[in-house]
Amino acid sequence: MSRTPTPADRFSFGLWTIGYRGIDPFGGPTRSAMDTRYAVEKLAELGAAGLTFHDDDLFPFDATDAARRTEIDRLKQALADTGITVPMVTTNLFSHPVFKDGGFTSNDRAVRRFALRKVLRNLDLAAELGARTFVMWGGREGAEHDAAKDVQQALARYREAADLLAEHVTERGYDLRFALEPKPNEPRGDILLPTLGHALAFIDSLERPELFGVNPEVGHEQMAGLNYAAGVAQALYHGKLFHLDLNGQRGIKYDQDLVFGHGDLHNAFALVDLLEHGGPGGTPAYDGPRHFDFKPARTEDDAGVWDSVRANMANYLLLAERAAAFRADPEVQEALAASKVPELAVPTLADGEGAAALLADRTAFEDFDGAAHYDGRGYGFVRLQQLATEHLMGARG
Amino acid sequence: MSRTPTPADRFSFGLWTIGYRGIDPFGGPTRSAMDTRYAVEKLAELGAAGLTFHDDDLFPFDATDAARRTEIDRLKQALADTGITVPMVTTNLFSHPVFKDGGFTSNDRAVRRFALRKVLRNLDLAAELGARTFVMWGGREGAEHDAAKDVQQALARYREAADLLAEHVTERGYDLRFALEPKPNEPRGDILLPTLGHALAFIDSLERPELFGVNPEVGHEQMAGLNYAAGVAQALYHGKLFHLDLNGQRGIKYDQDLVFGHGDLHNAFALVDLLEHGGPGGTPAYDGPRHFDFKPARTEDDAGVWDSVRANMANYLLLAERAAAFRADPEVQEALAASKVPELAVPTLADGEGAAALLADRTAFEDFDGAAHYDGRGYGFVRLQQLATEHLMGARG
Amino acid sequence: MSRTPTPADRFSFGLWTIGYRGIDPFGGPTRSAMDTRYAVEKLAELGAAGLTFHDDDLFPFDATDAARRTEIDRLKQALADTGITVPMVTTNLFSHPVFKDGGFTSNDRAVRRFALRKVLRNLDLAAELGARTFVMWGGREGAEHDAAKDVQQALARYREAADLLAEHVTERGYDLRFALEPKPNEPRGDILLPTLGHALAFIDSLERPELFGVNPEVGHEQMAGLNYAAGVAQALYHGKLFHLDLNGQRGIKYDQDLVFGHGDLHNAFALVDLLEHGGPGGTPAYDGPRHFDFKPARTEDDAGVWDSVRANMANYLLLAERAAAFRADPEVQEALAASKVPELAVPTLADGEGAAALLADRTAFEDFDGAAHYDGRGYGFVRLQQLATEHLMGARG
Amino acid sequence: MSRTPTPADRFSFGLWTIGYRGIDPFGGPTRSAMDTRYAVEKLAELGAAGLTFHDDDLFPFDATDAARRTEIDRLKQALADTGITVPMVTTNLFSHPVFKDGGFTSNDRAVRRFALRKVLRNLDLAAELGARTFVMWGGREGAEHDAAKDVQQALARYREAADLLAEHVTERGYDLRFALEPKPNEPRGDILLPTLGHALAFIDSLERPELFGVNPEVGHEQMAGLNYAAGVAQALYHGKLFHLDLNGQRGIKYDQDLVFGHGDLHNAFALVDLLEHGGPGGTPAYDGPRHFDFKPARTEDDAGVWDSVRANMANYLLLAERAAAFRADPEVQEALAASKVPELAVPTLADGEGAAALLADRTAFEDFDGAAHYDGRGYGFVRLQQLATEHLMGARG
Repeated sequence: MSRTPTPADRFSFGLWTIGYRGIDPFGGPTRSAMDTRYAVEKLAELGAAGLTFHDDDLFPFDATDAARRTEIDRLKQALADTGITVPMVTTNLFSHPVFKDGGFTSNDRAVRRFALRKVLRNLDLAAELGARTFVMWGGREGAEHDAAKDVQQALARYREAADLLAEHVTERGYDLRFALEPKPNEPRGDILLPTLGHALAFIDSLERPELFGVNPEVGHEQMAGLNYAAGVAQALYHGKLFHLDLNGQRGIKYDQDLVFGHGDLHNAFALVDLLEHGGPGGTPAYDGPRHFDFKPARTEDDAGVWDSVRANMANYLLLAERAAAFRADPEVQEALAASKVPELAVPTLADGEGAAALLADRTAFEDFDGAAHYDGRGYGFVRLQQLATEHLMGARG
Repeated sequence: MSRTPTPADRFSFGLWTIGYRGIDPFGGPTRSAMDTRYAVEKLAELGAAGLTFHDDDLFPFDATDAARRTEIDRLKQALADTGITVPMVTTNLFSHPVFKDGGFTSNDRAVRRFALRKVLRNLDLAAELGARTFVMWGGREGAEHDAAKDVQQALARYREAADLLAEHVTERGYDLRFALEPKPNEPRGDILLPTLGHALAFIDSLERPELFGVNPEVGHEQMAGLNYAAGVAQALYHGKLFHLDLNGQRGIKYDQDLVFGHGDLHNAFALVDLLEHGGPGGTPAYDGPRHFDFKPARTEDDAGVWDSVRANMANYLLLAERAAAFRADPEVQEALAASKVPELAVPTLADGEGAAALLADRTAFEDFDGAAHYDGRGYGFVRLQQLATEHLMGARG
Repeated sequence: MSRTPTPADRFSFGLWTIGYRGIDPFGGPTRSAMDTRYAVEKLAELGAAGLTFHDDDLFPFDATDAARRTEIDRLKQALADTGITVPMVTTNLFSHPVFKDGGFTSNDRAVRRFALRKVLRNLDLAAELGARTFVMWGGREGAEHDAAKDVQQALARYREAADLLAEHVTERGYDLRFALEPKPNEPRGDILLPTLGHALAFIDSLERPELFGVNPEVGHEQMAGLNYAAGVAQALYHGKLFHLDLNGQRGIKYDQDLVFGHGDLHNAFALVDLLEHGGPGGTPAYDGPRHFDFKPARTEDDAGVWDSVRANMANYLLLAERAAAFRADPEVQEALAASKVPELAVPTLADGEGAAALLADRTAFEDFDGAAHYDGRGYGFVRLQQLATEHLMGARG
Repeated sequence: MSRTPTPADRFSFGLWTIGYRGIDPFGGPTRSAMDTRYAVEKLAELGAAGLTFHDDDLFPFDATDAARRTEIDRLKQALADTGITVPMVTTNLFSHPVFKDGGFTSNDRAVRRFALRKVLRNLDLAAELGARTFVMWGGREGAEHDAAKDVQQALARYREAADLLAEHVTERGYDLRFALEPKPNEPRGDILLPTLGHALAFIDSLERPELFGVNPEVGHEQMAGLNYAAGVAQALYHGKLFHLDLNGQRGIKYDQDLVFGHGDLHNAFALVDLLEHGGPGGTPAYDGPRHFDFKPARTEDDAGVWDSVRANMANYLLLAERAAAFRADPEVQEALAASKVPELAVPTLADGEGAAALLADRTAFEDFDGAAHYDGRGYGFVRLQQLATEHLMGARG
């Protein structure tokens, strides 16, 4: 794997990421708005494969139909000229005052109906542009105060919305699947479906669960102190890793959206290792776009924006190179075996063994030597982690 | 509702809670072991209804069959003498060195088989004592280092274990359901099924999902910065709140296990309000034991242990009294309506309305007045929260 | 103490708090700009005593001298008409792009000089308006990436700035003291002087340390998981609590700026108890403005803004009432004594006792009965906390 | 710099670290006690230079004088035989029940006097062994409940203790300095002097502040979400970095004490870069022992303990190698200059320039071009961070 990105690497970027103007809670913009064609051309030049966007990234909230169509056509021309594709589209249900209490779960029913219409319209656009994934981030679905929101009803309304959208996609025959994006908080005090676990559970309550998966974001899970790679592994376990958002976060604090690889580096290594190779015990890898949802720092000018784009891709490729070497190293294989990592892939029960048979096996209990685990039977996990660290740092061979 | 607890309040306590000797990472015990009969008698005297326990709370890990039976019989006699019941039993798969890499998901297959046998045996005891809920807390199922554990395989092994236990319960005809208890970390760096969301999602991958629910603990969810009352509401939404662990936690840090009501008081109020009355929009309440899983502070002597027990129950009753007044207050009803909280219970779509009908409704989109939400259409959430605060503080009427 | 605020309560509000328009990282304003005169009149009507502001709250960053003076004169007239005072002024060194890498510690020396000039000018305004405290919040002083900032040099530049400002105040004879406001992060990844401890330490490196104290904010310390009341106590210990910012925060996450009393209620009770009465062992209380630095929720309209203002003051007064009852309760006094809280006020050494005398006292060591602290000598802290909880909740008497 | 440790690297380890038996809040020991002589010999064999300890690591809390002396003499012989030194000694004021409410700040005066005697005795031992640093970690000085502790009085008692110890050291002529070790929480809910900032501030209130500095621990600062390297830089700014504790922590959670380099790797790189080279703007480096305060994972056997010891030192040396290459890279130098990092070392004021002169300089304000910072004047911090990342990962040259 080369460190120079090509479309085969399937790297994609949100239009809102490179177009981020630097507005934050304590300051206004430091950069002016980015032209869509310029964005597409630069991404193509740097080796990216895809562009993603919210409707309101491309045209204003209150654009006329004509103005909206002009922007769409400009985008389509730029895509045609560069070969950039649109693997994913999403809807902005959070910026306008109308969504101040959320979209699908606003206490105001008229707002909920408006939100549904906004998304239905955007689904048609996603289909028109050939997107295969439709992300739903419910950033404003939540509350600061517990009495303000009946969470059970909010989930019921969110389900109602998801079911309607799935009905629409099915009726129209769109080749689109939905990916729910969890976040614990910010901009709301507590957001509905705060982690990928909550989102996965919610999907099981839908009419067409097969059309729904998750779009976990590095920083969002880490804002809850959770291990992102472990969460992604659970999404893979459920067959629900439909898409993902790569970026960097430095611990439990506000949503930083740093460059991928500039946050928790050990976990980024574990993640790329998992995405590229599957679990160390032989479980599935990921086969979808590598999507970056980051914000170029407010301190940067246009050159810094593109340095940031380059850095995201470079770090992914570098980590992938290191993960490949980690997997190929015989000493790592030996250490994995010593730590019994592959033994976790062996079922606990023998083929066909049930409770009765297990109860009859004296070696499992009556003759089991528990005492041998004191002052012995070490797992060698630290040695394994040190091998991972040295591979991550390029310090072996 | 009186502030003096009675068995009708269904308060229960873990034997390991009142029996906590004060051992922590930096110090040895400050109290000697508590006799089981004394514990049962004191709980009865103070108005509790139930006692819960891990196998190893009642008899040592390596007790002979005879010694184990002696302790069980002593417990049964104490229960018979006092009327205390055993609503829940759970298994210790975390203290002994054999479980240093977990029980059901240890990399060592022999350990996994031993763990299954230990739980099977304890299921029989739970059934013998009439428990209706069997809690599974996988505190050692996890890792400190990502390469040490194939998370997908770990989930597969956990599923295998859960399926076997459900088979056993079904075959034996036990009237027992399982409740998974999530925790994000401690004692492992990252624990499998870190939040109630992850546990709910996992349940959907089991053979007999109907036998499994969750046992969320206040402090465990709050250790991930999550809103406990909101999480419990999602568990109720899924019909999966089988049991719960009440205690107190002061933010994202080590597991504190404080007295219920001595942690996040606003969230405790929201929780009791939800458990007693259901969501403000008319959603289901909880009808199960009010179980306290706390640790009497290491600074306390025996009198302090029982002061702590009293405080847990007193705070629950006091919060329930305040929640009842909150619900009954006409000004609160008016404020809820002004905040449109009940409107969230109204389906977003009209009866039978599908995507096509919604698309045809011009009031939903084309004629929707978004601008009215700027400088107007405030939700009044702060006023509502202030009413909740004043009721919580007993400052109204 | 009445629950209706009066100027004697010394409540003050930032112009930027009531004037907050609802802009956050994911959405634009939901309210239009607030007129200064309206703000002053409403505060007076509701019983507040003071208004505080940043220069750029009152007039735009690039206002002409004439436009600036017009706004100042309008403010002065409103103050004269209402009796509202300006106890504190502060400078905006964070919103404009020029400050994207900070003000006093920007890597760009020209920016640092500009920042100094902006603050010098604002000091003159503060003196003109009779303010006694000048707050310095260095929200942009920091970095996202370690190599980007030499922290030792940044501290040296911050010291240089502080020394110059103190020189100016001294030369002009202004009756003004400086209060440094710490914050751990947001909008920068890591902010210089992240906690009140770091700020207190820094002050000791200044030329005129007596002119500098701290302005700790509830939410800022709690964003680092720190106990706000305990931190304020340390500031009092050093004689450095010059001012403070009251608001609410629900754990380690983005800066919420909720209404005071809508965050960690136990700690708010402990804080008000400390501010009003000093430590339980008889240590000093606080005698300065009770300043609210909060943001009315983005969901609220103008009526909600003023409901929020009312709620801040009402909660302070209610907590003060409860703290007074807590202190006056004989059972609390008895419980404090049983917990030996007052004994901490007794010096450990006898009058004039030094190391030699202590070493000669056999009761202190050789005859000390350590074993008595096992299974005994409980501190009764849980009972004390339960009494505090019941007073907080208005559940006693 | 070689990657094989030698005594010249000044690596030291706590006897409690390698001797950690695996006890945690949910499980008993997995390893038996380690013999002191064995520990010393192994450290020498692996290239360490020093051993540190608490009194109770070497001999039991209630050892007779003779038993205590036997252990001390065995240690001295092992030191003499191996060349290992004792650069630092510290006292255990936290494990025994007598310290359940703390040592120097226990509410119980007799406990405070006993704690002082225990430390005085241990100071004599430190001097006997030639230690130059005496660490004070007040892990039990704190509270779970605010009413339980008058923080101002606690600080006064802590000051009284520190002053007495400094008096003793001065009178006896010991060549010993004190290093305060902060921690935010665990084992207490909130600990006195929670961060290095609070400790630095406290030192300024002592009689002999010159004898006191700090001993910051990686994990302790990171448990408050603080940037460890930035904190260490502030300690260096104050001339107070007397000692430090290296280990690994993965975010805000319980105290993990992982191997150095197995936690936040970016910050570990920044730290080693700072310790070895000083700040990027030319500020002082650190010249003291590189002390590891970690816990070998509970999953490990004796071989794993020593693998862990090796990993700590290997990671330090590897990071030092990478930091040296980072500093030597001309492209890094160029990028630092482009980011104006060295310009922060230039005083903001010209030599001798005061407020009046600055006010007279029109280029500083009236003619300053603020608008140029919009859409321009980017700082290039992301490019710089990417260079650091690539050096950290050994991906350049």
